[in-house]
Amino acid sequence: MSYKVDLTGLERDGDVSLTRQLADRFSEAIESGLLEPGEKLPPTRALAAEAGINHLTAARVYRRLAEHGYVTASVGRGTFVRSLVPAAAEERGDDWQTYVLPDRPMTYQDEILSDAFRFPAREGMISLATGWPSLEFHPSTDIAAIAAEVFEEQAERALSYLPPEGLPQLREIVASRAHDRGSASDPEEIIVTSGAQQAIDLAARTLLEPGDVVVVESPTFAGSLLALRSTGARVIGVPVDDDGLDVDALEQVLSRHEIKLCALQTACQNPTGADLSAERRSRLAQLAMERNFFVLEDAVYADLRFDGERPPSLRREAPGHVLYVNSLSKVVGGGLRVGWIAARGPVRERLITLKQASDFHTPTLVQHIAARYMATDAYDRELARSVPYYRERRDALMAALHRHLEGEYDAVTPRGGHHVWVTLRRPVEERTLYSEAIRHGVSFTPGGAVTVERQQKTSLRLSFSLVEPEELEEGVKRLARALREVRRRARTAVAAPLS
Amino acid sequence: MSYKVDLTGLERDGDVSLTRQLADRFSEAIESGLLEPGEKLPPTRALAAEAGINHLTAARVYRRLAEHGYVTASVGRGTFVRSLVPAAAEERGDDWQTYVLPDRPMTYQDEILSDAFRFPAREGMISLATGWPSLEFHPSTDIAAIAAEVFEEQAERALSYLPPEGLPQLREIVASRAHDRGSASDPEEIIVTSGAQQAIDLAARTLLEPGDVVVVESPTFAGSLLALRSTGARVIGVPVDDDGLDVDALEQVLSRHEIKLCALQTACQNPTGADLSAERRSRLAQLAMERNFFVLEDAVYADLRFDGERPPSLRREAPGHVLYVNSLSKVVGGGLRVGWIAARGPVRERLITLKQASDFHTPTLVQHIAARYMATDAYDRELARSVPYYRERRDALMAALHRHLEGEYDAVTPRGGHHVWVTLRRPVEERTLYSEAIRHGVSFTPGGAVTVERQQKTSLRLSFSLVEPEELEEGVKRLARALREVRRRARTAVAAPLS
Repeated sequence: MSYKVDLTGLERDGDVSLTRQLADRFSEAIESGLLEPGEKLPPTRALAAEAGINHLTAARVYRRLAEHGYVTASVGRGTFVRSLVPAAAEERGDDWQTYVLPDRPMTYQDEILSDAFRFPAREGMISLATGWPSLEFHPSTDIAAIAAEVFEEQAERALSYLPPEGLPQLREIVASRAHDRGSASDPEEIIVTSGAQQAIDLAARTLLEPGDVVVVESPTFAGSLLALRSTGARVIGVPVDDDGLDVDALEQVLSRHEIKLCALQTACQNPTGADLSAERRSRLAQLAMERNFFVLEDAVYADLRFDGERPPSLRREAPGHVLYVNSLSKVVGGGLRVGWIAARGPVRERLITLKQASDFHTPTLVQHIAARYMATDAYDRELARSVPYYRERRDALMAALHRHLEGEYDAVTPRGGHHVWVTLRRPVEERTLYSEAIRHGVSFTPGGAVTVERQQKTSLRLSFSLVEPEELEEGVKRLARALREVRRRARTAVAAPLS
Repeated sequence: MSYKVDLTGLERDGDVSLTRQLADRFSEAIESGLLEPGEKLPPTRALAAEAGINHLTAARVYRRLAEHGYVTASVGRGTFVRSLVPAAAEERGDDWQTYVLPDRPMTYQDEILSDAFRFPAREGMISLATGWPSLEFHPSTDIAAIAAEVFEEQAERALSYLPPEGLPQLREIVASRAHDRGSASDPEEIIVTSGAQQAIDLAARTLLEPGDVVVVESPTFAGSLLALRSTGARVIGVPVDDDGLDVDALEQVLSRHEIKLCALQTACQNPTGADLSAERRSRLAQLAMERNFFVLEDAVYADLRFDGERPPSLRREAPGHVLYVNSLSKVVGGGLRVGWIAARGPVRERLITLKQASDFHTPTLVQHIAARYMATDAYDRELARSVPYYRERRDALMAALHRHLEGEYDAVTPRGGHHVWVTLRRPVEERTLYSEAIRHGVSFTPGGAVTVERQQKTSLRLSFSLVEPEELEEGVKRLARALREVRRRARTAVAAPLS
């Protein structure tokens, strides 16, 4: 058996540990390009056999490579060369930490989210990976004026502590706006969080323990998967179609498991853009009440609607069972970090207690700003201003896909939100496509980062919110070129994988 | 055997569960005052025997009472009537939640912290429970001007996303200010957090798993205990004396355990006001490097110094092993929620990944404000303005204790910070004293909420930062009266406790 990386001639009695020697050989191979981004490494047992080392030493080699950012481990799938090798090698003086830290390597979702927060700045890159609101729609002039009013009115109090559940005025305005749709009925139900991500994280940590079962839409939002998985709960994916979460599939899960939580987006779902139908909404609420599980209803894209009517909140039908999450991020800007969760009963108390232990409360200033902003019609004006632009971008992206990838993909036109979920008719190796696309100057979110189980099909989440229509056209062109290149290489490749 | 609460005549075949019937009898007894705040309830086995019910049902009765805010459970000590019964009974429709939620009742620390965030507002109450900066020292005029500059310069970018590790300008100014004391040497080491509480929580969650051992100063800060305990790690307390954490006692722990983390405040410790001596600083750094554990150095009170020189950072001596935490809360105001943690190596990556999954990043606006504020001499001016006031309050509190409680207590004069740690020479039941003090119109932090193991002695943390000197005098008078009342009752009480 031979392998691209030379595993022979290790110094067995030298000063340098076997782990270090092998890790260095792999990192050199990765840096030199001998091992390509996305490439799967041999299983640890195969590596151990080939290099004549202990199985545990082999595992340490991969752990070390992961800690230094060279590879990423995916439970049940194996270890892969990381898509983005760090520009400079990390300092090596703190190796001991690797052996002391809990065995929790960076996940695919961590990596993809982390890329998303860094990529938009890259020169020449067209980012279809980030579904952020566009800078041009951040109402910074309004918010600057409101901030000045807050300081004028609140003075020192704008800088002092608040109760963990948040500013009473903000909780009131959120509840009054929520009332019509049924997502909350009383300010007491509202807990202010630092964006929807924190709301999801608090809910996951409050409800879930290792061994619990949680159901989530698949595909979903990477931040949600991260928060749910970090609890040690078993995450089961349920498909999404044009009517939202497939409740029949959920019932099949319920026939085999007691579940603690079902997490979903009920309107303009990320990434499919689907709404949960009225019939499924009722069935889901009924199931939650019959089987006594919680539902996490994330509505962050619900207002960004291009087609159809916004459905009422699922929480209206089962307010004790549904935790409702929303934020100002998609309209005012994600940097404000103001979101909320609506809950009642003992779980509400638990959420408040955990919020307190996590960071005491969301900053006072941004809560005052949010309260004043929401008390005017500014939110609705901003929405009315931005939605036509996002609709135009959605249409441009759908048209570009049709022009440059016809016959290659399936995609449903999203009813709202910032994303299009594209599935290729003939699968390719997803990480290879990702690396190749980056090389061609376009990024996207690989489907595997937002789905629960390994998919037979290759899917991509393409986000259009940050990109002008002409750039969307160019981005899809680059993507089509990258795909052709990957298919060409797959045809000509000489495969020499280790066992 | 008889007990204050009637446990006879339960409806065994009725519509209302036994759990509910018993819980209602207890809650009525608590609301009517028959059972007093701080009173210990019978052990579940005794309750089960007396009421003729199953032991598990008895446990459910207490769990239900805890969830409705009537009692609080303390591991290894029993179940106690909560000091503050909720004003109105909670809604009862969501009982099912209690049985689905993880079995994590509110801790004594949760309760005390939660009181702290609510009490200062209470009419007529003198709060010696909260060590917050005084409103009069929040530089809101400066901050308002800075906020306006931020919007002028950054426009929409003041509302857009940042990388999880924080705003580069803020990380730079923090690192440059940290440089002299050795707490950080490079902006890359700085991760911006939503206050020191989040920094501690992220560190705890990054480093600790159930079964790990962590050492913490005892007494310490309630928020720290909460974060450490929430990980499921075993928390071992080490005493603090006038030279800070007792490193001999730490060595004894190290002779029996591998520890993952040692958490402490190295300057103006909360609540003792002690500094870690130079000799102990070196020994602790040495131990961390020899035994490869992490140290969490929390320096939030280090700048609020009345006497002596500020010691250099422990992190200077072992930068790979020490995670350094600080914030702007004590000078600019806690509501800003800007803190940071300095770390390097793999643990730094882990902290950033967890920050991202928790809330993406700290709000952009407050990071810009903090960066500009710290770039001027405003922080140092504010400190110079507030420290003399706090010193005066410390002196007033020490004098009042001397006047009204002479012979009753021991306390070391704190070198800085916001607290005095007072130990009574003759112990009393701490929760009884707490309730009685509240009744007399003064609050404090009970020692048990900030110590790890049950103490033989009765200790109180008295915070002076929010209270004018004359009010401190009145507060201590009330405390002295409450103490006399508790002692009087203890002498005359007819004890009729259930086994």
